[in-house]
Amino acid sequence: MILNLRNLIEEETMCEANAYLIKEGKEELFLEDISILRPERDELYLQNIFGEQKRIKARIKEMNLIDHRIIADFKL
Amino acid sequence: MILNLRNLIEEETMCEANAYLIKEGKEELFLEDISILRPERDELYLQNIFGEQKRIKARIKEMNLIDHRIIADFKL
Repeated sequence: MILNLRNLIEEETMCEANAYLIKEGKEELFLEDISILRPERDELYLQNIFGEQKRIKARIKEMNLIDHRIIADFKL
Repeated sequence: MILNLRNLIEEETMCEANAYLIKEGKEELFLEDISILRPERDELYLQNIFGEQKRIKARIKEMNLIDHRIIADFKL
């Protein structure tokens, strides 16, 4: 019971979001568990909770923090 | 004890972020508990968990999902 509650709390405290990139009309997972997102000129800088960093020539299309989803598409 | 755990779970499951707007070098709270964010042309569309919607001529400067903060500045 206690373990179950702890799992529930830990699971639910993950507020990071996953970034998906639209490729040929489909959403592809680009980076998980993002903690920091920063638009930089024509790029997006993303950093996740494991310290992994990525930059990509893309722009934010929509973010849904309830669904933990960041949707981005390539910058034309 | 059970109530405390419930409070903890509810408190920690709030994954929404607050949006702050930079005005004269200071961050001002613009909208709380944001669930959806969508850049639209030169505006930002924001919607919170209470269904409140706002549009503003601003751009995202940085988002920190651990701190639940979205920082935006006015679009020049």
